[in-house]
Amino acid sequence: MQDAKKAAVVGLGSMGWGAALSLLRAGFSVNGCDVRADVLQHFIEAGGNACTNPAEAAEGADAVFIFVVNSKQAEDVIFGLQGALETAAPGTAFLLCTTMAPSAAIAIAERLEAAGMLVVDAPVSGGHLKALSGEMTVMGSGSEKAFAQAKAALDAVSTKVFRLGDTPGIGSKVKMINQLLAGVHIAAAAEAMTLAAKSGIDLRTLYDVLRVSAGSSWMFENRGEHIVSGDYTPRSAVNIFVKDLDIVTSEAGRTGAVTPLAATALNLFKEAAEAGLGLEDDAAVAKILARKSGATLPGMEDRT
Amino acid sequence: MQDAKKAAVVGLGSMGWGAALSLLRAGFSVNGCDVRADVLQHFIEAGGNACTNPAEAAEGADAVFIFVVNSKQAEDVIFGLQGALETAAPGTAFLLCTTMAPSAAIAIAERLEAAGMLVVDAPVSGGHLKALSGEMTVMGSGSEKAFAQAKAALDAVSTKVFRLGDTPGIGSKVKMINQLLAGVHIAAAAEAMTLAAKSGIDLRTLYDVLRVSAGSSWMFENRGEHIVSGDYTPRSAVNIFVKDLDIVTSEAGRTGAVTPLAATALNLFKEAAEAGLGLEDDAAVAKILARKSGATLPGMEDRT
Repeated sequence: MQDAKKAAVVGLGSMGWGAALSLLRAGFSVNGCDVRADVLQHFIEAGGNACTNPAEAAEGADAVFIFVVNSKQAEDVIFGLQGALETAAPGTAFLLCTTMAPSAAIAIAERLEAAGMLVVDAPVSGGHLKALSGEMTVMGSGSEKAFAQAKAALDAVSTKVFRLGDTPGIGSKVKMINQLLAGVHIAAAAEAMTLAAKSGIDLRTLYDVLRVSAGSSWMFENRGEHIVSGDYTPRSAVNIFVKDLDIVTSEAGRTGAVTPLAATALNLFKEAAEAGLGLEDDAAVAKILARKSGATLPGMEDRT
Repeated sequence: MQDAKKAAVVGLGSMGWGAALSLLRAGFSVNGCDVRADVLQHFIEAGGNACTNPAEAAEGADAVFIFVVNSKQAEDVIFGLQGALETAAPGTAFLLCTTMAPSAAIAIAERLEAAGMLVVDAPVSGGHLKALSGEMTVMGSGSEKAFAQAKAALDAVSTKVFRLGDTPGIGSKVKMINQLLAGVHIAAAAEAMTLAAKSGIDLRTLYDVLRVSAGSSWMFENRGEHIVSGDYTPRSAVNIFVKDLDIVTSEAGRTGAVTPLAATALNLFKEAAEAGLGLEDDAAVAKILARKSGATLPGMEDRT
């Protein structure tokens, strides 16, 4: 650590990519790892070190960010063959940024800690634009020592780090509940737009009025715009909410909590994925509601 | 109209009361009408003219605000015995501020216009505090002539008047869709808080994090605070959302739109009303979810 601090980012998707670039801007030497060759090539052009596997990426890193899609992948890239644990030095900070079931985050953290690593359960929020600008929000939990080891790296990727508790799992629980709300709000925005279309209301006018009214939400403001302009370029895909709301309903089932709205929204996202919309923007759940309602939303005339 | 302008407010509930006081502050002579004698007494003390029936209130008024609870009451106070139409002069502006089914607003407006009146379909938003400060939002529709006649009165009660179309009904449709979102968001906030409680998350911490995250909504910010502090003093009651979400699902059924989230939320509000919580704050829908989940939320220890 006499020279530049070194960080690894495993998974250069929309959030991991932004984190990696933010670390480079902050002066880190950054090892990036992804299964897609074109992404690695772009990463080299951006000034990063492209690594072909997590073990190579974790070598010499002070902090290892895990930004893969789900807990299964997280286990693979950490504990699997050529996983990060093969090379990470004891005391390395592992930042678990993947949205996963709290129970999975706890299990992974326990194995890492048993191997002498420091762990911050660190799911993030803010979307890909905030990731790119280094302004993510981190819903973190972990030991004081782990936060201290990770501080410079966390500061590079985020403007707000909540430290929600001393043990991994709490961050993932808070993120899970954020996703419950976010998923229901996206589906509600889709339902509102569909009813408006069926009622003969101009969607742009509706959007302009409701985004500043008591019916508004962060997601209505953000995804409502996608629906009104019929733009389903994926910023965050339908499949993500199939995964995240499944985490919500599974954990709810485990604890005995009833979550009828999350379950209803999950069914809509699942239907969208089954209809082949899984890789479209999550606002495409509106197309499912529109089809069931016999409505036509913007962008549905030519491609449904 | 050579002297002070005169307005009538029929229904001095939480929104009508605020509108009436705002009109007084703006220099209007205000005739107020309500079935509750104590409210009329307070209104006299505030500088208003207390009227015992709508006919008395509408006499000589340039604008008549209808702020009763539902469309049935609106019909009664306008067209019934001692209703406003008995005394209102042709060309009086009727402001239909009650949240009602768009079809009901259209029917009432047609009868009023046939009697020579001007009508603005004028549902409002903003809550009782904005009503008190004269800062409501009006989701209005109606003829240019009606808006011109109502302008001074509308300006007195609101800071933002959307003119959404030339005919009554459009305002009520936009308000209906606002209520769809608002009702679902309140129920989602309740569901989120319940799952958090079951997961062992501190609710105040959760609230502080999520109110500034992508899972936030106007309602999560507003009603989430009620749930965290266990304060179910009614600002807007459970019964209001039983009514408003029933309008949503009825109109959706009429147009063929599917509204699974609104239907799910409506069931929760109905359960809350059936459990005797109808007059509590609408956030009390959380108590229903908590009971079903075996969770205890703040304020549920002593009184459930």
